Amino acid sequence: MFTDNSPIRWDNEKLYLLDQRKLPETSVFIPYEQAKEAALAIKNMVVRGAPAIGVTAAYGTVLAARAAYARSPERWKEEIEADLRILADARPTAVNLVWALQRMRKLFPAIDGDPEPKLLAEAQRIHREDIDANRHMGKLGAALLPDDCGVLTHCNAGALATGGYGTALGVIRSAWSAGKIRTVYADETRPWLQGARLTAWELLQDKIPVTLLADSAAAALMQRGKISWVIVGSDRIAGNGDVANKIGTYSLAVLARYHGVKFMVAAPASTVDMNLADGAAIPIEDRSSAEVLNLGDRPIAANGATAWNPVFDVTPASLVDVIVTEKGVLEAPNRQKMEAMMNN
Amino acid sequence: MFTDNSPIRWDNEKLYLLDQRKLPETSVFIPYEQAKEAALAIKNMVVRGAPAIGVTAAYGTVLAARAAYARSPERWKEEIEADLRILADARPTAVNLVWALQRMRKLFPAIDGDPEPKLLAEAQRIHREDIDANRHMGKLGAALLPDDCGVLTHCNAGALATGGYGTALGVIRSAWSAGKIRTVYADETRPWLQGARLTAWELLQDKIPVTLLADSAAAALMQRGKISWVIVGSDRIAGNGDVANKIGTYSLAVLARYHGVKFMVAAPASTVDMNLADGAAIPIEDRSSAEVLNLGDRPIAANGATAWNPVFDVTPASLVDVIVTEKGVLEAPNRQKMEAMMNN
Repeated sequence: MFTDNSPIRWDNEKLYLLDQRKLPETSVFIPYEQAKEAALAIKNMVVRGAPAIGVTAAYGTVLAARAAYARSPERWKEEIEADLRILADARPTAVNLVWALQRMRKLFPAIDGDPEPKLLAEAQRIHREDIDANRHMGKLGAALLPDDCGVLTHCNAGALATGGYGTALGVIRSAWSAGKIRTVYADETRPWLQGARLTAWELLQDKIPVTLLADSAAAALMQRGKISWVIVGSDRIAGNGDVANKIGTYSLAVLARYHGVKFMVAAPASTVDMNLADGAAIPIEDRSSAEVLNLGDRPIAANGATAWNPVFDVTPASLVDVIVTEKGVLEAPNRQKMEAMMNN
Repeated sequence: MFTDNSPIRWDNEKLYLLDQRKLPETSVFIPYEQAKEAALAIKNMVVRGAPAIGVTAAYGTVLAARAAYARSPERWKEEIEADLRILADARPTAVNLVWALQRMRKLFPAIDGDPEPKLLAEAQRIHREDIDANRHMGKLGAALLPDDCGVLTHCNAGALATGGYGTALGVIRSAWSAGKIRTVYADETRPWLQGARLTAWELLQDKIPVTLLADSAAAALMQRGKISWVIVGSDRIAGNGDVANKIGTYSLAVLARYHGVKFMVAAPASTVDMNLADGAAIPIEDRSSAEVLNLGDRPIAANGATAWNPVFDVTPASLVDVIVTEKGVLEAPNRQKMEAMMNN
């Protein structure tokens, strides 16, 4: 239904997720009929990327409602709660997950009878709106770039991380189409290698050439004047404009400021959490040290070594030049500007 | 002969190199009897680390002289030149390679008859002096650290990178023995994973616990106040104190300065190249993109992606708090201080 390079499909009354753990070797969609299986898919990173997690949770709510209604047509609104909790707890950092569940839940009071048709329509609306938001952000962000520029992105904030088209990669896609970009650089993004595996894969599918680099080479890239913008997505933006995103984003923000390189965050408004005063309140997920000590199932580190594996970090608003959402472009973000944008 | 955890041994008239490409899975020494095979071992990173490359080149000169003398006892000093050139060209960035060859070559004029005994004695002297320098630097560097501190190192500047004991890891070994270090953090150091494979391996052999992290997590580590010093080695230090070292070192230096973390470079005087005015003149080796696109022989990136793989970067002296050599401790390095130290 959503052909816009979406990693998420609803078809034949099932949720299908593109298994991103297997990319780029194989491109396989896995079907889901149970909400808690969808939650496990989020936890295990079959699907990842804050907006994509949100869309998945919306469809997961449809699956949960179907099962709850089958168990008890009268009490499905109570029956569904356990599954919604499991979905909400799947991963802690991306606020889009909670946002999507809340938006789905708002429909519950007005639903009589079988909830599936109305909830499915809402999930599909959330999905479509995410793609539309990305396309709009793509134009807004691209307009900020100079001609013939080099850009660097981190992790994967592309079609694969969203309902489709992408946030940071949406900006890059749009700017590339407009002929503004000379070279797209992508950090490989250890430990999960989202850059090498996912960003490179989806850009090459669109015939956009991409040059990968080890994450630690980004500073040398800036030192040599190869890029004028760093463009990333976000998993949660606090009320003051502090940005949680993939580990290494904060490093890029510090390095960008030092080198006079601009730093752009592109994310839908569903990523903004105005309830949080600042980034210190954003829950940062530590994942298993095995992700650092192994590559897939292959050990790469000395036996007996331990590892610290925080998978997100927080970039203070003061290091962010621009936040782009579908609601507009916000330079030098702060609480006041964030509120004005979100109330717009 | 040099049991001080040396990756280099001379035994039974052969040069033995610990194959660092195979660590930590297997620990195997490969014998070398030909200089050009030793040069290939340097090029292919059987042995790596600037001081270790220097020591290897010294022993390689012994092998070259043996072959040249066998071909022509009268004209060995001409015959040897081709092999010395091959050794000198094995890798471009580490100046220790050229330094060792020059030091070996200084003996040639005074040698009558079979050159092997005198050249072997000199190579062993270079080897032993490197270990002694490391032990001395270890004490000097450790004295700079506060009690109960966290330190971060990058790549492998340990016994494996030197004649034995290590430069940055020599400082860490010494400080650990003195009970000054709470936690040793090590960047995994993509693309070759020297941190995960080598640094973790050799520290664990010494029962020094080590916590690995993805390279891009170093900024978050500093942001959380977990470390007070970054301690690294060097492949070449220019006359003004600019430092070439493993890719990612410059990134750490910028991040350290931003976070008020101190930045120490530990390297023997053989790493200093007073002939170069500054770091811009240091040749930086670009290695094959395959090192980024694959892990060992396993592809990890999307098919068709290209990669940029500079394996060293240059940190300006202005970001270096301390250079430690066996000649002393040099704070806020500049040309004048470097000259004074080297003439000491």
